[in-house]
Amino acid sequence: MEILVDTGLHGGRHMVVRHSSEATGCEMEFALFVPAGKGPFPCLYYLSGLTCTWENAATKAGAQAYAAQAGLMLVFPDTSPRGDDVADDADFSLGKGAGYYMTATSEPWAPHYAMDTYVTDELPRLVAELAPVDHNRTGITGHSMGGHGALTLAMKNPGQYRSVSAFAPIASLRQVPWGQAALNAYRGDDPESHALYDAAALMESHGWAGPMLVDQGADDPFLDEHLKPHLLAEAAERAGIDLTLRLQPGYDHSYWFVSSFIKDHIDWHMARLR
Amino acid sequence: MEILVDTGLHGGRHMVVRHSSEATGCEMEFALFVPAGKGPFPCLYYLSGLTCTWENAATKAGAQAYAAQAGLMLVFPDTSPRGDDVADDADFSLGKGAGYYMTATSEPWAPHYAMDTYVTDELPRLVAELAPVDHNRTGITGHSMGGHGALTLAMKNPGQYRSVSAFAPIASLRQVPWGQAALNAYRGDDPESHALYDAAALMESHGWAGPMLVDQGADDPFLDEHLKPHLLAEAAERAGIDLTLRLQPGYDHSYWFVSSFIKDHIDWHMARLR
Repeated sequence: MEILVDTGLHGGRHMVVRHSSEATGCEMEFALFVPAGKGPFPCLYYLSGLTCTWENAATKAGAQAYAAQAGLMLVFPDTSPRGDDVADDADFSLGKGAGYYMTATSEPWAPHYAMDTYVTDELPRLVAELAPVDHNRTGITGHSMGGHGALTLAMKNPGQYRSVSAFAPIASLRQVPWGQAALNAYRGDDPESHALYDAAALMESHGWAGPMLVDQGADDPFLDEHLKPHLLAEAAERAGIDLTLRLQPGYDHSYWFVSSFIKDHIDWHMARLR
Repeated sequence: MEILVDTGLHGGRHMVVRHSSEATGCEMEFALFVPAGKGPFPCLYYLSGLTCTWENAATKAGAQAYAAQAGLMLVFPDTSPRGDDVADDADFSLGKGAGYYMTATSEPWAPHYAMDTYVTDELPRLVAELAPVDHNRTGITGHSMGGHGALTLAMKNPGQYRSVSAFAPIASLRQVPWGQAALNAYRGDDPESHALYDAAALMESHGWAGPMLVDQGADDPFLDEHLKPHLLAEAAERAGIDLTLRLQPGYDHSYWFVSSFIKDHIDWHMARLR
C-alpha cells in the first residue's frame, strides 16, 4: 500500500491509499478517515454512485465532521476497477465508475469487475493494517448505485454488517434501465443469478434482521425512472423488514442532499455500532 | 440575475447565481446559502483562494451545516473576472482565479479586475435581492489569497464588516512572491498604493477595532514562502490589534484544513453578529 495523502482532518486523519488489488486485478485507490483516539473504532463503509471515485463523498458529504465526534472510522472505496486495460463503455452508467458492487462473469468485464469481493473481503483487511478497526462493529451505507450496493452487500453478508442505510438508492436493479443494462453486461451469461444482485429481491430472499434507513430527495430527477423507492417499500412490507423510508421535499440527487442528511445516518449507525 | 441552481441544503437553500457584473464588466457566478426561516439573517462572506471559484468552498468546507444551525447566510464569490475577453496569465497565481480582491489600474488588467468593488459594493446589493439579509450584521472570512482579501476589505471598510477571520491568509502582499507579482501586475503603475492592498500594512495604517481570528496549518507547504503569518502577528502587536493566531499542528493548506476549523469560525462570527 502506498499512502498518497495523510493529513489532519477534524482532529483525526484523512488518508488516501493506493494499492494493487487482488480482487480487481488493478491498482485501486480508497480514502479513509481515522478519528482521534486509540480505538479500536467502529467503521462505516460509504459506497459511492455512478461516475464517482472515493473523492466525491470524502470531499463533499461532510461525513468526517460527525464521524470525528462519534469516534467512527469511515472508508470510501472507488466505484469500479481502473486502468487502461480495464474494459469500459461510452455510457457513464456502465464500465469504469459503474462497478455496481458485483462480480462480473461475462466478457469483457470478468477479468477486473469484482467490486463486491473488493469491498467485503479485500478492503477490510487493508483497513485493518492502517488503523485499529473493530470489525465486529461495521456498518455500510451509500448513495444511488452505492446505496443499492450497501443494501445488497449487507443482506448477503449479515454477519459482517451490523447496520445498513442508503441515500437515494436504486431499489431494484432488475426493474430499472441502469440496472438492467448492468446486469445484462456484467452477468448476462447467468440470468438466474440476477436476483442475487437486486436489493428488492434480496429483501424477500435473504431479509434483514434489523432496521434499515433510506433517505430520498423528492425532487431527485432520477426518482421515477432509475430509483423507484416504492419498490423497496413494497418488498420490505412483504418481507417484514423494518424500513424507514423518508422522502425529503426540496432535495435532489446531489451531494447537497447527501450532506444534509449524513449526520442523521451517522447518528443512526452509531446507535447500532456503539 | 439567472438562478442556475436552487436546491435544498441543511433545511435551507443552496443557490448558484449568474449575472452580468457592473464592477468587473463580465458574466460572474456566485453561490449563496440561505438558512431556513424568515430572516433578516446575518451574513458571512467567504473569499476563496488562488485557482478557486465559488464551488471549492461551497462544496468542500462544510460551512452550510453550521450556518444552518446558526441562522447565518453565506456568500461565496468567485475569485476573479471570467470570460474570453478577460486578461489572463499562464501562472496560476495571476489572472483568472487570482483577482486578489483589488482593483487593477495597469493594463491589460484594468478593464475587468475590480474584485474589491465587486465584493464590497455590487454583491451585497444582489444578495439583498435574493434573500432577507441584515447588512448591519455582516462578517467576512476567506482562505489564502481570500484570507488576505477578507482582512484587507474588513480593515478598509470597518463600517461594513462587524467581524473578520481568515484561514491560512497571505500576511502581506508586498513581502511574498505571489503578492509582489500581483501588485506589480495589477497596480504596477501606482506603487504608492500598494500598502493599501497589504494586510499587515493596513493593520498599522487603518487598524481594526475588534478581535481577529486566524487559523494556520503548521504543515502548510506555502507557510514560509507565501503566507508568513508571523508578519501578521508582528503588525498586530505594533498596531494593538487583538489577533488570535492559531497554528494547527498536522494540517496543510487544503480544504481538509478549512473544513476542520470552519465551525470555530462560524461560532466566532456569530458571537459578533447575533
